[in-house]
Amino acid sequence: MVDFSFRRMMAGTGGTAELSRALIIGGMNGTSNTYAAKKYKLEKPLGTHAHSWVLAFKDDGNAFEAYSAVYPHMASFLADTFDFLKKGMVAAIEEIKKLRKEGYNQLILIRDDSGDLAERSKIARAMLDAAGLKDVKLIASNDLDEYQIQSLKRIQDARLEVWGVGTRAVTPEDSLGCVYKETFKIDPYGKVIPVIKLSGNVSKSTLPGPKWDIRLINEKNQYEADVLIHDSQLQESETRLNYTFYDPFYRDLHTMVKGVASKLLQVKVMEKGEIIYDGPLEETLKIRENTLKNLSMLHEGHKRLENPHTYRVGLSKTLFEMREKMILGNK
Amino acid sequence: MVDFSFRRMMAGTGGTAELSRALIIGGMNGTSNTYAAKKYKLEKPLGTHAHSWVLAFKDDGNAFEAYSAVYPHMASFLADTFDFLKKGMVAAIEEIKKLRKEGYNQLILIRDDSGDLAERSKIARAMLDAAGLKDVKLIASNDLDEYQIQSLKRIQDARLEVWGVGTRAVTPEDSLGCVYKETFKIDPYGKVIPVIKLSGNVSKSTLPGPKWDIRLINEKNQYEADVLIHDSQLQESETRLNYTFYDPFYRDLHTMVKGVASKLLQVKVMEKGEIIYDGPLEETLKIRENTLKNLSMLHEGHKRLENPHTYRVGLSKTLFEMREKMILGNK
Repeated sequence: MVDFSFRRMMAGTGGTAELSRALIIGGMNGTSNTYAAKKYKLEKPLGTHAHSWVLAFKDDGNAFEAYSAVYPHMASFLADTFDFLKKGMVAAIEEIKKLRKEGYNQLILIRDDSGDLAERSKIARAMLDAAGLKDVKLIASNDLDEYQIQSLKRIQDARLEVWGVGTRAVTPEDSLGCVYKETFKIDPYGKVIPVIKLSGNVSKSTLPGPKWDIRLINEKNQYEADVLIHDSQLQESETRLNYTFYDPFYRDLHTMVKGVASKLLQVKVMEKGEIIYDGPLEETLKIRENTLKNLSMLHEGHKRLENPHTYRVGLSKTLFEMREKMILGNK
Repeated sequence: MVDFSFRRMMAGTGGTAELSRALIIGGMNGTSNTYAAKKYKLEKPLGTHAHSWVLAFKDDGNAFEAYSAVYPHMASFLADTFDFLKKGMVAAIEEIKKLRKEGYNQLILIRDDSGDLAERSKIARAMLDAAGLKDVKLIASNDLDEYQIQSLKRIQDARLEVWGVGTRAVTPEDSLGCVYKETFKIDPYGKVIPVIKLSGNVSKSTLPGPKWDIRLINEKNQYEADVLIHDSQLQESETRLNYTFYDPFYRDLHTMVKGVASKLLQVKVMEKGEIIYDGPLEETLKIRENTLKNLSMLHEGHKRLENPHTYRVGLSKTLFEMREKMILGNK
């Protein structure tokens, strides 16, 4: 079991090494926190790379090649960015065979971070064994806790050998699940190239490209819905008051939404690395005033404690179709 | 609603003002965090005192008198240290009448932090009204959240007007509930005087006096139970292996526990303000080794995830009887 908690730690840089130390004291076998490993003289830190690493390359194969060029002794490939079995595992096996040929025989891990960990691990294990890579271990992550690990090991017979545990080790169950993901990259000529991370869970697939959030206000002066639009729709959004609106998770659900007014919720504060915002930074009591005004514009149904009506946030047709096209293109 | 979160904040001194600021932005009416109030130009902070403040005096009356000598303009009395209605409220009303006579007519709060907040508030309100103190407001605290406040206000008709919300605002539900309470004080002649905080909930009453924790080890080399003993039992504990053992919460439950060996779990590190410990400060990996050894000495039943058997921690007869005597003496 490896402490993977670093990116989920709440204490900023202040207490992170201490949290990792506490996990080691509690019995974990290793940590991905290099600073903690150094500060507390632990064994070598054991890491992996992020989905954004894969997205920064053309495909899994190119990403793994670049990664193992730096860590040939102890590579750990995250293989579920697009399709764990058909793409990630295939690329990882190819890269590991190359490493073995070059004489790197140390521990190598392949990580799965989504989908049906148990079933996928059985197929992935068979693929590795068939490729003569019996010593390569499969590592699982994805909000694991003691109950899930117990179930995966004892009940589902998962062929996983290493467990990366982070979120549930240092944050409580009801922690805010914010994760950084890349949605586009900019090529050397300044061209914006949208990227997408796919997943076994639709809710973990990202929305490609630069986006804006438009809030529609209805005739009762209440907030009606938020529509996420693609950057290319920004100009028309200034006057537009009705949208075909797609549910972000259930593709078949779409409807029309309209308002009598709209407002753009974002303000651009940086461009090409420069701060371009020079508006006011509001005082705390002024921000509270805005909060209370915003709350007063929300329908009561959204604010009740029991079974509140969900406020609608959806995708514009342009954004929805762009995501669909990229999902198909990656299949 | 007042932000009372300061003592429950996790971020140390680093992010505390920012957490309080977030609560104000979210709509809270005030904060007890003086630093946040100053830093973010909020209205005057609104505080109260702690149970330990009351325990440091002879009784509620003396504690409230000393407190209002410093804050005559805006006193806030915590009245549930011993008995909310029979002692705390009576003393608070007496003190407030004195303040009014001296011309201090500003807002005064009386706080209840335990027991049946709704029922007690109705009686307390009647006491205040009968004393001609209609302008004195009752403030509730004690792990309140939006559901409890809704229930107290709308269903239980509690006569509470101000809500101190802290723990549930800045920590998650499954946060570790550590609270500092005084268990003894030392008089000017060096004499140790045990004190007790009583409560509507038995589990919130403290264990008086200086204590030690003895762990008994059974013939299978497993941990059998922990016994909390009073300081006066420390010497005999060196050789003693059996104890009459009282459940800390259910007074009628007592049993015999015995071991073939015992160990004292605490080490004295300070005495009279001086550090007296000069043993080794273990390295992280050595501490992990101890953890794993300790875990191996725990019965499997305590370690299973589903419905584990609770490891027993109880009070020695001496400590139990001392607490009973002090509870009776305070009634």
